[in-house]
Amino acid sequence: MTDPLVVFTPSGKRGRVPAGTSVLDAARRLGVDLDSVCGGRGICSKCQVAPGEGAFPKHGVTVAPDALSEFNAVERRYDEKRGLKPGRRLGCQACIQGDVVIDVPPESQVHKQVVRKAASDRAITLDPATRLHFVTVEEPDMDAPSGDLERLRAALKAQWDLDGLSVPLPVLQGLQPALRKGGWEVTVAVNHDTGSIAAIWPGLRTAAPLGLAVDLGSTTIAAHLCDLGTGAVLASGGIMNPQIRFGEDLMSRVSYAMMNANGATEMTAAVRTALGALAAELAAEAGIAPADIVETVIVCNPVMHHLLIGVDPVELGQAPFALATSDALPLEASDLGLDALAPGARAYLLPCIAGHVGADAAAVALSEAPDQADEMTLIVDVGTNAEILLGNRDGLLACSSPTGPAFEGAQISSGQRAAPGAIERVEIDPVTKTPRFRVIGSDIWSDDPAFDAEVTGICGSGIIEAVAEMRLAGLLDAGGLIGSAEQTGTERCIAEGRTHSYLLWEDGDRRILVTQGDVRAIQLAKSALYAGARLLMDEAGVDSVDRVTLAGAFGAHISPKHAMVLGMIPDADLTKVGSAGNAAGHGARMALCDRGLRTRIEGLVRRIQKVETAVAPRFQEHFVAANAIPHATAPFPHLGPLPQVSFNQASGGRRRRRG
Amino acid sequence: MTDPLVVFTPSGKRGRVPAGTSVLDAARRLGVDLDSVCGGRGICSKCQVAPGEGAFPKHGVTVAPDALSEFNAVERRYDEKRGLKPGRRLGCQACIQGDVVIDVPPESQVHKQVVRKAASDRAITLDPATRLHFVTVEEPDMDAPSGDLERLRAALKAQWDLDGLSVPLPVLQGLQPALRKGGWEVTVAVNHDTGSIAAIWPGLRTAAPLGLAVDLGSTTIAAHLCDLGTGAVLASGGIMNPQIRFGEDLMSRVSYAMMNANGATEMTAAVRTALGALAAELAAEAGIAPADIVETVIVCNPVMHHLLIGVDPVELGQAPFALATSDALPLEASDLGLDALAPGARAYLLPCIAGHVGADAAAVALSEAPDQADEMTLIVDVGTNAEILLGNRDGLLACSSPTGPAFEGAQISSGQRAAPGAIERVEIDPVTKTPRFRVIGSDIWSDDPAFDAEVTGICGSGIIEAVAEMRLAGLLDAGGLIGSAEQTGTERCIAEGRTHSYLLWEDGDRRILVTQGDVRAIQLAKSALYAGARLLMDEAGVDSVDRVTLAGAFGAHISPKHAMVLGMIPDADLTKVGSAGNAAGHGARMALCDRGLRTRIEGLVRRIQKVETAVAPRFQEHFVAANAIPHATAPFPHLGPLPQVSFNQASGGRRRRRG
Repeated sequence: MTDPLVVFTPSGKRGRVPAGTSVLDAARRLGVDLDSVCGGRGICSKCQVAPGEGAFPKHGVTVAPDALSEFNAVERRYDEKRGLKPGRRLGCQACIQGDVVIDVPPESQVHKQVVRKAASDRAITLDPATRLHFVTVEEPDMDAPSGDLERLRAALKAQWDLDGLSVPLPVLQGLQPALRKGGWEVTVAVNHDTGSIAAIWPGLRTAAPLGLAVDLGSTTIAAHLCDLGTGAVLASGGIMNPQIRFGEDLMSRVSYAMMNANGATEMTAAVRTALGALAAELAAEAGIAPADIVETVIVCNPVMHHLLIGVDPVELGQAPFALATSDALPLEASDLGLDALAPGARAYLLPCIAGHVGADAAAVALSEAPDQADEMTLIVDVGTNAEILLGNRDGLLACSSPTGPAFEGAQISSGQRAAPGAIERVEIDPVTKTPRFRVIGSDIWSDDPAFDAEVTGICGSGIIEAVAEMRLAGLLDAGGLIGSAEQTGTERCIAEGRTHSYLLWEDGDRRILVTQGDVRAIQLAKSALYAGARLLMDEAGVDSVDRVTLAGAFGAHISPKHAMVLGMIPDADLTKVGSAGNAAGHGARMALCDRGLRTRIEGLVRRIQKVETAVAPRFQEHFVAANAIPHATAPFPHLGPLPQVSFNQASGGRRRRRG
Repeated sequence: MTDPLVVFTPSGKRGRVPAGTSVLDAARRLGVDLDSVCGGRGICSKCQVAPGEGAFPKHGVTVAPDALSEFNAVERRYDEKRGLKPGRRLGCQACIQGDVVIDVPPESQVHKQVVRKAASDRAITLDPATRLHFVTVEEPDMDAPSGDLERLRAALKAQWDLDGLSVPLPVLQGLQPALRKGGWEVTVAVNHDTGSIAAIWPGLRTAAPLGLAVDLGSTTIAAHLCDLGTGAVLASGGIMNPQIRFGEDLMSRVSYAMMNANGATEMTAAVRTALGALAAELAAEAGIAPADIVETVIVCNPVMHHLLIGVDPVELGQAPFALATSDALPLEASDLGLDALAPGARAYLLPCIAGHVGADAAAVALSEAPDQADEMTLIVDVGTNAEILLGNRDGLLACSSPTGPAFEGAQISSGQRAAPGAIERVEIDPVTKTPRFRVIGSDIWSDDPAFDAEVTGICGSGIIEAVAEMRLAGLLDAGGLIGSAEQTGTERCIAEGRTHSYLLWEDGDRRILVTQGDVRAIQLAKSALYAGARLLMDEAGVDSVDRVTLAGAFGAHISPKHAMVLGMIPDADLTKVGSAGNAAGHGARMALCDRGLRTRIEGLVRRIQKVETAVAPRFQEHFVAANAIPHATAPFPHLGPLPQVSFNQASGGRRRRRG
């Protein structure tokens, strides 16, 4: 008699197994994704399946009523105690007696698809590194003494075929109480990436372990607390990076480390404390204990990376910008001072691409996957340092460009961080030259009589829009000069010494101006950004790009049109210029939920061609040519014509021509 | 033409290699033990060899004058700068051109024999886990950015074929300064047992790394600082275990952990701090930096073991005495708070044998090697808990017996620790019943007119000798009763209530007596010790032992004759009863110097048959029978006849017979 045929759906995997084989065993033999925490004891219910009935012509199978064994005592008890949905069986109890079609519902699959709620709707496949394994451990025997750990190891080997797992000391310290509290039954969280035990809980624990995806930025630290069983985000949040008190931007922090004996150590302690506090905050919000967090994935720029792991970032402040380490780092969370997480929790830091292009850029590459696109894609993560990726499935290039902090509102006369009260959107009427604006925290434009928001300054996206609008309204010429009241026909252009400023807002004594200095600061920043992108285009041998993606929290607020008027980015079809939101944070979450992606990004980072802007002679040329708004030479056909004005006072105006 | 034949002495290894092969390469190919730190660059001189000249009939080789290449520029420079002994060549530079005999002098061998300066003169073969590897690392290149660590890994792979080494974070933190200080040349200390990097020093470092062998006892912590290149002990020392303030003996410390919420944590912190202080002290004594210590091997009893690694020892205080872990523990030294050692220093804890028989007993087994002896060997490590090993090459048994602290002078009326002023040797004239004694710190007996030492109490070995001498002098009967002045004929036997005490010394008001209570305490302790040994003899199926070894610092001071008169140990030929000194500490040093011994002791501990005295019914029987001095039933033929006295006052004297 031939063995019964079993067909699993939705995978379609099929094969014959000896009569009497449990559905769980059959699934394992055939490589079907069927979950189990208790290892087949009929108590965790993770292996629930829905057996088919009747004819399945598609599979060539007709399922007889007795294709599976009858409900046994274990299933009946489970059904009485916790209830089985109609038609469901416990895969570890139901035995195959005849040809059968068995559906594995999504909640019983380990590798679920998690759809991202975002424009790109890229899905994450759930394949977490950490899995739960329930084991029954032999009790100690005085006549054959052995350690509790050694008996736990024997149980993991016998019941799960898990061997040679490493056990961090903090896990060992909690082993004896857990075994006794659980009556010699415990649930072990095993990190299959590192082959280590993350946590041991008394008894059966079916709640999925949790993970923390962290985007550690120079200014803010953002994190998602994720359920590794469903991929769901249980809580998200961010806090300020407390290192700001040591320096606003990266280079000032590197300087702090160079000038102060314990500078790097202080900054390391500060960021670790903040990260721990954020983890605790999110755990509290989700109503779980921080010790339920079994792993964390962290992305950050190289300076943050080194300060987090306790490496002095001094080498990153000077050529040749050597990283202490570029590869992905598998660490213990406690190495980073995250002692409140699970006792054996692991921390995975994505690889850095180069001395100025960090693990955050690697995470952006993972999230946006330009290496899987046909279109020549430019991805710009705008911050103090812009990290720039360019390429498609034929290859990927990366560089970093020192834009400075102007895009974040720093070095701007009325500049401020993006916070309530900051002007974030600006429009200037090209005829009347009168501005209107919106501030963060209010949806009402400033020319609406209902507008009553407090105005405190102008943030990064606000200054970009203001300067671009000034150019569109003919208040600013291609060289970046603000015209006089006379030249522009508006009293809002106010002389300040030998230059002019544009009055955006005033209220009594308080005024918000866009000064000539502000325009110069924006010009420097945008030239650096454009020059970096252009350098990569040279390397790639292309003159235009098909798609531009602005990543980063700031990128989400930049108006594509205004960015292009400024010449921040190369000319492109405006419908193909968009924001990816916090792509770095999303990449961290992806690497947290799917351990296969860790291998993928490690391989991709090795293949990315790195371009160092600091030593590329053409970078300087591109930088100079990009100083004009939008550009001295490059055509911007997608923009259409801009006002042809020139306010160069050296060729007229107040300053006399010599000779 | 056949390739030249090369014969290495003293190993006798021989083979043919292509003409032009360096002596170092030839040695590696033929598996000859020839050291090298610089990897063949001609700078470390560790590979010096002494080539032979002329005829070697024994090897069938005649060495021509041009059998090796001439001195090359590298050798000449080395000779000029540092001097080569006459007849010596650098193995990495001299090339084989014809048949040759090459002697590898001892200092060029890695696996030297280190003879132990002790009675047993067992030698340690030097084969340390940590070895030095000099590498030249590529400088960073902005056009092909990679981390310094990744380039170090590439160098270790290319220059030493070392791959996949783990790099602890503290090592990584020091990498960049070391590479720059060393001009991209560094010496890497690699622990080949754990596959990890222990330290990185700038430039070439030829000084051998150092190791620390620790015997962590309940009362004292002793350590040897060893040169892992020569096996030499650079400094030795000990300090009190500060846990004493939480409880004198092991069980009182377990109780402290049970009764106080943070009790175990406090004790862990105390012992770790002390261990770090001891390491610093020994390093200072040897004139080295603690950071030069690349590994440590630690032996201790199970309670100390658990407290050191931060595991609450509560389970060791109650049946079934379950260890948290019994296997050897490979840890990072920093896990134990030893942060001042090399940044990646490792700590190796020997395996525990059972809940009461610790890694210290395993170290004793390693040091004394009863498993390699033909003689049936009894090894007793006397302390608060006696750890007992019995066996020979056919098998080994182990148990622990709760002797209590009487042997250490505790629970004795005038008892004190072994310290200056304590009576340590006692003789009683069998005719006059007059005692004489010696105190620690003085070589003069108390009956010498020159004796002027201060007398402060009696220590463990002193009370053992005193009680044994009382038995030999007829002052004490087999049941352990001290006779009255009348019965013994000496006024030194003083009535105290219904029992008697023997006056050992008095000076004005101050007296040192051996009281009936003292004798009872010693009887309890020695009965436990004997019963444990006897239980193992039962299990082994023997009625006598061939050799008795007393281990431990205390064992070194016990007089074999007196121990046998007391019946502490079974009857044996007195010439075969001896002390092994601090065998546990020596075992730690052996495992430090020879990593092969770690595998050996791990295997041996698995094979040792463990016997739990607490649940063996015969232990109680043996204990009761062993109460008599020397024993109620067992013959002690090697002792000869003892005085036949009986002071049982129930059969006469003050107490009336009933009925």
